[in-house]
Amino acid sequence: EDRTSIDNQGNPYSNEPERNPEFIVRLEQPYNAEPPLSKLVENFITPVELFYVRNHLPVPNIDIKEYELEVEIESTGKTKTFSLNDLKKKFEKTGVVAVVMCGGNRRSEMNGVKEVRGLAWSGAACGNAVWTGIRLCDLLSAMGVKSDESSHVILEGYDRDPTYTPYATSIPLSKAMDPRGDVILAYEMNGEPLTRDHGFPLRCIVPGVVGARNVKWLGKITISKNEAESHWQQGDYKAFSPSTDWDNVDFKTAPAIQNMPVTSAICSPNPNDHEIKIVDGFMEVKGYAYSGGGNKIIRVDVTYDQGKTWHIADLQQLSDGENVSAGRHYAWTLWTIRVPIEKDQKYVEVWSKAVDSNYNCQPETFKNTWNLRGVVANAYSRVGVNLI
Amino acid sequence: EDRTSIDNQGNPYSNEPERNPEFIVRLEQPYNAEPPLSKLVENFITPVELFYVRNHLPVPNIDIKEYELEVEIESTGKTKTFSLNDLKKKFEKTGVVAVVMCGGNRRSEMNGVKEVRGLAWSGAACGNAVWTGIRLCDLLSAMGVKSDESSHVILEGYDRDPTYTPYATSIPLSKAMDPRGDVILAYEMNGEPLTRDHGFPLRCIVPGVVGARNVKWLGKITISKNEAESHWQQGDYKAFSPSTDWDNVDFKTAPAIQNMPVTSAICSPNPNDHEIKIVDGFMEVKGYAYSGGGNKIIRVDVTYDQGKTWHIADLQQLSDGENVSAGRHYAWTLWTIRVPIEKDQKYVEVWSKAVDSNYNCQPETFKNTWNLRGVVANAYSRVGVNLI
Ligand SMILES: [Mo]
Ligand SMILES: [Mo]
Repeated sequence: EDRTSIDNQGNPYSNEPERNPEFIVRLEQPYNAEPPLSKLVENFITPVELFYVRNHLPVPNIDIKEYELEVEIESTGKTKTFSLNDLKKKFEKTGVVAVVMCGGNRRSEMNGVKEVRGLAWSGAACGNAVWTGIRLCDLLSAMGVKSDESSHVILEGYDRDPTYTPYATSIPLSKAMDPRGDVILAYEMNGEPLTRDHGFPLRCIVPGVVGARNVKWLGKITISKNEAESHWQQGDYKAFSPSTDWDNVDFKTAPAIQNMPVTSAICSPNPNDHEIKIVDGFMEVKGYAYSGGGNKIIRVDVTYDQGKTWHIADLQQLSDGENVSAGRHYAWTLWTIRVPIEKDQKYVEVWSKAVDSNYNCQPETFKNTWNLRGVVANAYSRVGVNLI
Repeated sequence: EDRTSIDNQGNPYSNEPERNPEFIVRLEQPYNAEPPLSKLVENFITPVELFYVRNHLPVPNIDIKEYELEVEIESTGKTKTFSLNDLKKKFEKTGVVAVVMCGGNRRSEMNGVKEVRGLAWSGAACGNAVWTGIRLCDLLSAMGVKSDESSHVILEGYDRDPTYTPYATSIPLSKAMDPRGDVILAYEMNGEPLTRDHGFPLRCIVPGVVGARNVKWLGKITISKNEAESHWQQGDYKAFSPSTDWDNVDFKTAPAIQNMPVTSAICSPNPNDHEIKIVDGFMEVKGYAYSGGGNKIIRVDVTYDQGKTWHIADLQQLSDGENVSAGRHYAWTLWTIRVPIEKDQKYVEVWSKAVDSNYNCQPETFKNTWNLRGVVANAYSRVGVNLI
């Protein structure tokens, strides 16, 4: 059975969902789009209609009455299928506030150093949502899976390419089985059923881990001794040395991106804003900061004099407590700072840098972290604004 | 009973152990010393006699027949004491290869930007050893402790200050109870009983975590709702913004360092070497790289033209397998690269930078990561060498 709709002319993109016209579209087919940067930081929880969409393939059109999730344990050959109702009935409902961030987020800034290949994302290819569903570790435990150090969880979507190959990728089994890893099979986003663009009816949410592993339209889970053999696991979503280019790259030499490094982005103002508001001699600057792997943002430093002096931003973040504790900070941090502007000042350049709970920080420039695919682009955020 | 030896003149430093005369002493009392950088990278497993010593107080002189470890669970009041033999008999023996790295490692390089307060460590205030002992989670589980998200493990040494206050610090209970956290109570280092300088008879090894939490001469473990109230937890081993100085610092605003950030150091040659060997037109450069939190080093990039071109170093590291897997890379990585030297070249400057499995990297300079105590000094390593 083919869940990708193909019309009479053979167009697999004939049945895509409606999208927010405010979106900045980076590619129409498959659909890839992000919201305006300044809109992104208006809400701590990103509304569904402002949450970036990164599709690798046409959006499948899934009939919930026919939907099945297949789970296979390669070592024993054991297989089981579940309807969405089976999953809801058999396993405890749980939620996590987590960022999903594209591996190519902020790629366009890296492109400024030297051309990289990929969609020209600005810094809004990420969002912070409440994901509700069941724990993957509960499902796997019920099937007798025990964590081991060398196995992987292969995640396949119902989205398929013209050769009927599904989108697929994998995460370490140890992440999936760790209750503190908070990996869930989500059927709700911000309290509502997933929309088609966000993976209806089921998406694997892998907190702290690059978007590419947060598989939408989840169709099959395989416990395997090997990573996924897919293009998306083996031949993409990896970063290399600045000296590695297309004539000498060997994708086998780098590990698949899992946890994302620490980053921050100035979202408002941004150079595309038409009008910069100065109130009582100050310009308000807002952005987000995030570190993968559950690491907490402990500080955001901002400079408006090229690093001569640094100023500490005010942070908005989930406070420590049940499920938000050392190693489980999967949500983002929003930050604000007031930058003083002199009466006749024509221009200001603002930089931000974040520090996480491992005291890792952002690299200063994209020059020395340039990589040919333009992934994990996490250098200082630098925004110059004309004050007219 | 007082396990610190004080002689008739009241000198608490009258009974210190013998030390390696090759050590570069940063402070005599308490004793703090590191080996020459180039010696550090001669061995993947650092020999005990080349392992840096960072003592906060006089070395206690412990009679193994009288030694006791006390464990207290604050919430229930439950207390238990163990002799070393009790621990060896009751709990499984296990080992881990792990770096212990001082929070002030490489501080002297940060001092070049602007003065910092602390011992002037070069990059040899770290070492990589085989630690053998028992799992802390086994001991705590046997006492009925269950992991929770908000408790801490307070670790006290038998080393005491003149007011009889012991060295103390704490780690999150979730780290201690995580079998993949590999926290052990070690009684052996590289297969031999601990020496006095390294914590005889028992040291808590907290892999991936700053040296200060790897408490030597372990005397007491307390499970508490609160972090240790000690100076070492609250008023030291924290990093601040470059804009924070002694006139405006508030230690409450920063979290205690636990996991260390990614770093690398060029160890050989170093500017103190008398003779630089050039063989067949190449100079061999050696160093280490390490990232805390169990993150693996995935690449070390080296440049000898100020970043115009980067070259990938050869890595020596433990291969993935049982107990060395995603999130459990607690050993260091040694690296080497051959730098071409032209016939009449008088000087070469080499930089190194490491990337870890979260794709975190080192900051370029110490300027923007300067902090008043000079901790977590992890910028690019830069060594200039006169070739005569
Ligand atoms: Mo992505
Ligand atoms: Mo330390």
